[in-house]
Amino acid sequence: MDGEALNILLVEDNMDHAELIMRSFDDYRVANKIYHIIDGEEALDFLFRRGKYTDSKKSPAPHVILLDLRLPKIDGLDVLKEIKADEKLRRIPVVILTTSESEQDMAGAYDNHANSYLTKPVDFEKFTQLMNDFGFYWLGWNRKP
Amino acid sequence: MDGEALNILLVEDNMDHAELIMRSFDDYRVANKIYHIIDGEEALDFLFRRGKYTDSKKSPAPHVILLDLRLPKIDGLDVLKEIKADEKLRRIPVVILTTSESEQDMAGAYDNHANSYLTKPVDFEKFTQLMNDFGFYWLGWNRKP
Repeated sequence: MDGEALNILLVEDNMDHAELIMRSFDDYRVANKIYHIIDGEEALDFLFRRGKYTDSKKSPAPHVILLDLRLPKIDGLDVLKEIKADEKLRRIPVVILTTSESEQDMAGAYDNHANSYLTKPVDFEKFTQLMNDFGFYWLGWNRKP
Repeated sequence: MDGEALNILLVEDNMDHAELIMRSFDDYRVANKIYHIIDGEEALDFLFRRGKYTDSKKSPAPHVILLDLRLPKIDGLDVLKEIKADEKLRRIPVVILTTSESEQDMAGAYDNHANSYLTKPVDFEKFTQLMNDFGFYWLGWNRKP
């Protein structure tokens, strides 16, 4: 960790969850910046620098992507597929964060090369703890080129 | 976490590192069992239940695979490729754990769908901390079908 802020792309349409996630990172040990996007289409615009995201300063390559499954416009699984089909983007870890405990959703995520799959804890403290551990692992320990 | 022991497949030919990793899990909060294998060929035998591993009791599906890159017989990257080419096995998270900080190794790992890439800390305490965080994240939080 070199002191440079690490960017997280958060794709989440539930505003309560998004706020909780962003607050968890507020007092986080590693400097970070969260880009919050609420639908799948805009997430892909951000990643592929299209539409209003052509300026790379406004759409820096994220260190990790936190992706909800049920999303407006383009579904989370389709966002995942497009990321993992792209030669450059596929090296960015995509962590699914969802309420779905369905085996089918988990299998679909891994079959399309999700790096990890997390379910949102109902309990507030546990949710905060999860986000802390998530940040520590993916921003702190995990390496990418 | 349901109290059932979670299996880790550790593929590591450096005995000092393997011992350190296994010791880190000894006083770990989640019940676990580590299967330690020292070369790539045997790792694939274990996963595909071939050779001396035809009995599934001796080769249970691991919850997560910790894979070194430089391995005797079959290289870590080739082991990774075979795992991720298999319909069932590809749903098992594969975490690379290596001394290599090379961009090329990192890129190669992600291009072949490694779930995560960790470099071995030189410092003993940091290594133990990494293994604790690894276990907490992949055995505790991460979900798989």
